[in-house]
This record gives sequence, structure tokens and C-alpha cells, in this order.
Amino acid sequence: MSGSGQGGDAYARAGVDIDAGNRAVQRYRDVTSAWTHPDQLGSLGGFSGLFRLPGDPKRALVGSTDGVGTKILIAAALRRYDTVGADLVNHCVNDILVTGADPLFFLDYLAVGKLDPEVAALVVSGVHRACRENGCALLGGETAEMPGVYRPDHFDLAGTIVGLVEIDAMPDPNRVAPGDAIVGLPAVGLHTNGYTLARSLIAETEYGAPFDGWTYGEALLAPHPSYLEPVRAIRQVADVKSMAHITGGGLLENVPRTLPEHAAAVFEPTRWPLPPIMAELVRRGGLEHEERYRTLNMGIGYTLIVPMTDVDKALRAAPGATVVGFVQPRGEGEPPVIVRPVRTA
Amino acid sequence: MSGSGQGGDAYARAGVDIDAGNRAVQRYRDVTSAWTHPDQLGSLGGFSGLFRLPGDPKRALVGSTDGVGTKILIAAALRRYDTVGADLVNHCVNDILVTGADPLFFLDYLAVGKLDPEVAALVVSGVHRACRENGCALLGGETAEMPGVYRPDHFDLAGTIVGLVEIDAMPDPNRVAPGDAIVGLPAVGLHTNGYTLARSLIAETEYGAPFDGWTYGEALLAPHPSYLEPVRAIRQVADVKSMAHITGGGLLENVPRTLPEHAAAVFEPTRWPLPPIMAELVRRGGLEHEERYRTLNMGIGYTLIVPMTDVDKALRAAPGATVVGFVQPRGEGEPPVIVRPVRTA
Repeated sequence: MSGSGQGGDAYARAGVDIDAGNRAVQRYRDVTSAWTHPDQLGSLGGFSGLFRLPGDPKRALVGSTDGVGTKILIAAALRRYDTVGADLVNHCVNDILVTGADPLFFLDYLAVGKLDPEVAALVVSGVHRACRENGCALLGGETAEMPGVYRPDHFDLAGTIVGLVEIDAMPDPNRVAPGDAIVGLPAVGLHTNGYTLARSLIAETEYGAPFDGWTYGEALLAPHPSYLEPVRAIRQVADVKSMAHITGGGLLENVPRTLPEHAAAVFEPTRWPLPPIMAELVRRGGLEHEERYRTLNMGIGYTLIVPMTDVDKALRAAPGATVVGFVQPRGEGEPPVIVRPVRTA
Repeated sequence: MSGSGQGGDAYARAGVDIDAGNRAVQRYRDVTSAWTHPDQLGSLGGFSGLFRLPGDPKRALVGSTDGVGTKILIAAALRRYDTVGADLVNHCVNDILVTGADPLFFLDYLAVGKLDPEVAALVVSGVHRACRENGCALLGGETAEMPGVYRPDHFDLAGTIVGLVEIDAMPDPNRVAPGDAIVGLPAVGLHTNGYTLARSLIAETEYGAPFDGWTYGEALLAPHPSYLEPVRAIRQVADVKSMAHITGGGLLENVPRTLPEHAAAVFEPTRWPLPPIMAELVRRGGLEHEERYRTLNMGIGYTLIVPMTDVDKALRAAPGATVVGFVQPRGEGEPPVIVRPVRTA
């Protein structure tokens, strides 16, 4: 069970309460700890849940539910309804990919204040297109018209993915060791996190204004990519010990979830480009180092930890992949993620 | 992909547009028809989607996503947050039960305007309790805090269930024949449908007023039961040919989904009690016959079609089950569901 969009102080100023999110997660643990299904397996970093396939103990089903958050408000403001569905599917594909799972099927939940069939069809067309691109069935979904809950022009979109994994072939973060390399796959924008902050820093009236060859609105809506193909390609040639999908919480909160206790991940931001929209948000929000790497992905969408000896093979397998850091021993009281040197935007 | 809360004219008056829902479903077919995953199987009445288990062609995964609709607005008004989670899980369990599937796991999606950890924990506690009662893992979920989409005191709750079924053991509506009996399992209230209508007929200020030994609010919030145990018990002793979960669309729209083309289901409402809250809504709304049986479940939550010779065994297996009708031949141009005699509330 993940909390509400994680992040730093900037997020709290924008109206999302991180502390409440953490308390909710703690309370969820309280209310759910009394019983766990015997076929439920420990999760891998909390990106998704694992359930042993009945009658087939070597395989597990992997499930994850997510939403696109307030990115939908930007889509609604720009009347661009055909991309948020792909954002959602790709986000979910990446979440279960951390276990090495192949996606099987997806179901969507679309809730609207007033149902416009054309708008709903555009949203679902984006879901369907991304499902097809990921080789994943669109098994069903629900469209709910709820006057009184949503404003007529507002909507919410969430979805659930189910995948399948060979348990023995899953990455094992406990094999991560000092000296391993961290390979990063590039982010193309905010993906599906940080939008409440972004909306507080870039007014709706600016969405049409030019920015970096696009408009602000286009830069903000840049699609969340699926990392299925590059990750499959890298796993075929390299010993991938651990992976993380860089979502809400950024490098600081997502990478530690798949590190062993006595390892720290060191990131060197000079090794990869910062997307211009990130630089703009950092500048406008005066975001401190900690806030940047906790609220935004800062240009890295997905990380894979491989032995240093496999780096060349990994990079050749996935165009765009770069080494973004390495693993070192973690001493008592030291943070699990270090970003250095501090980049001044 | 189901449409928005189905129903009749009364629903349209209450702000839910059935016609738009039907058009959306048609448009979904348009945008998704270009590609279907090869392992996706035809659904059984559209209550859930079926996906052939990779490497195990005799079994299929069954998935369904749903929300609790505007029942949440009544729960929010009464500050009763611990029951809607069970409504949702039981609704989803029943949806896949139509295929005979055993539930494996569930994931929830909770979206709020402002996150109150205690309220969120109450919601999730209801989800967890119902999962446990159905022997279904609560595999994960997402809590999204979205200021700007939801009012601070509003929330939405949706969920996805995944089950497993032996394909050869699935009910086969094509075996339904004239003379078969329809066994009904009793509804305890509105379950998760008809709430936009109910809210238009019963004002929030009345929720605390006494009604039928409860209050209006309590009667409206009566929990959606799981039919897993009675259905399992009946299937162990009787030849169940077809089943339907009576959700939005009532008997008129749900039962035909699991009937063969030339069969009609005849329901005789004198055979089962009408829950008082239904009678009250029929009276207040002046609901016509068609509207009643399309917008509300009218006291039947789930139907099973069995040979007449298996009726006694079926009724003995599940306390509360009653014969509610029978199957007869359906002529050209005749409706697939007939409710007679017309009950005057």
C-alpha cells in the first residue's frame, strides 16, 4: 500500500501532506497486520504485491494499482485526453517490472463528474494503445459518472496491472554489493509525479506559452515511458541485481527500497542531463537539494544495479542508458542515497 | 468495460446520463476493437474479464474493477468510513463469482481531497476485513491525495479483484433451457447501485431520522454482501448453468447477459420480500415498473439458474435462497426478462 504522492517541503506547501501520507501508511500496517493471506509473498520494495500462483509454486502473480495524480488536471485544462491513459499503463508496467514481471493484463477506472463519451473514449484509447505497446491485455474497466463527487469538467483515472514472474528469476537486492554500478534510464519529464507542485509553480494561463521548443503544457504532459523493452534487453545480457522505478519520492525514497541494509547508492548528477522542465521547476520553486531529489525524478526514470563488469553490455543493450552512480558501503547513521556533487540548477 | 451506473429515466433525472454511458461503451468498443490480446477470452456476461493463464491453458485469471459509486457520499455525510471498503470488496467478489472464480487478491484505490490518516485507515480496515472474510489477499493499493480534484471532505474508492477459474468448470449459459428454475439470493439493500437516485429522493437532513428500526442513513448504508459461500454451497450440490450479479441495471439488464438468445427469464416478485428501503424509494420517486427493475435490485442480489430437479438441493444448501422465477422460451421481439405480476409498491 503506497502512501499519497511522496515528496518534500515543497509538496506540503502545494497542498499535499507528506506527513499525513506516512501516518496513513503506518495506520494501514496497523489495520492489516492482523491477517495476511498465506500465499501473499513479501513485496520487492513495495512497488507491487506478489501472490504465489495456486498449484504452481515457482511462479507468482504481481499486482499494482496506481493513478495518474493531478497530471489529469493539466490534461483537462489543455483538453488533451489521449495521453494520460498511456501515462497510467506505463507507470504500472514499470512498477511491476521492478520484480522482473511480464505484464499480463490491465484494468482501468475512470471517474467523471459528467460523462462525455468522446472524452472517455479518448482516455481509454490511450490506455488501450499503451496496453498494446506493452503486449498487455486491456481486460476491462469501470467508468463511473459521479455528479457531486467530481466537478463536471474533472475526472480521475486509476488502473491496476497484473503480471507474472518466475520467482527464482526475480532480482535479489541482497546480492547488491559495494562497487556495483547503477545504470539509469532517462526520464522524459515529470512522468506521473510532482504535478501538484508543478501546478503551484506554473499557472494554467502559462500552459500555452513557448518553452524549450514546446509549450509549458506540452512539457508538463510529456508521456511517462514504459521501460519494459530496455529492461528486458539489459536483463538478457547483464546480471541485474536490483531495480527501482523512480516515482513519487524520487531517487531518495525509491532507490533505498531495493538496496540491502549496509549499502548506499551514490548518484553523480553531472553524468546525466536534467530535463529543462525540471530545471525550470527547481528555479521557480527555489527547491533545495533534498526537495529536488525527493519530489522530482530529476531526469532518471528507472535504475538498475549491475556488476561493474556488466556495464558495457548493459549500455549497449539499451540506447539512452547511462551509468548514473555506484554502490558503496553504508556506515551506521549514513543515508542510503547520496547525490553529489550538489547540482546548482 | 462496463458503462456508468446503468438505470432508467429516474437516474437521468438524478444527474446520471445512461444514454451517455451506453454511447461511451460503444465508443470503447470502437477504440479497442483494433487489437485484442490473444490470451484474452470472451467474457461471461461482461461482469469480469478472462485471461488464459500462460503455460496452463486449462485455467484462466479473472479480473474486475469497480467503484462504490456515490454510496461514498452517504458514508461521508454520516462519517461512517469502515463499511464502504467491504461493499467494494464484496461487489468485486460477486462480479467474478459469476464465472465460478475463486478470489485470489484485491487492490484498492483511495483518492481524497485532503488525507486524514484515521479516515483512510477506517476505509482500508473495511477493505481488509472483507478480503479476509472472502479468503482473498489484500495485495496492495494506492492512496492519492489530490487537492483540486476532490473537495477536502470527499473521497472516492475503487478496487480491482483477481481470481482464478478452471475453464471447464465455468457455468455455460448456453445450457440454460426452458423449465429451468431461477434461484435468487436476497439483497439487503441497495448494495452499490442506485445511490445517485436515492440521494435525490432522501435528503441528507433525513439520514438520522428513524426508518424501519434503523435510520434512513443506516438503511442506505446496509452492506453489500458477498455471495461466495452460498454460491459455493449451491454449486456443490446443484448443476448451476448460469449466474448473474444484480448490480446497476437491475434484473432487466444483468440477467440477460447470462441467458442464451432464445430464453427469457420470468420473475415473480410475490415470491420474495421487497426491502423496505426499496419500497420507500419506489414510493418517493413514483418509479414506474421498468425504472424499478432497471435502477434497483428490488431485493434480489444474485441469481442462479438450475434444473428444476436441483431446486430442493440448492435451497437446502443456502439458507435465504428462494425460487424467484423460471426460464421460458423467448419469441422473436420478446424481452429477455419479464417481471410479473407488476408489483404495486
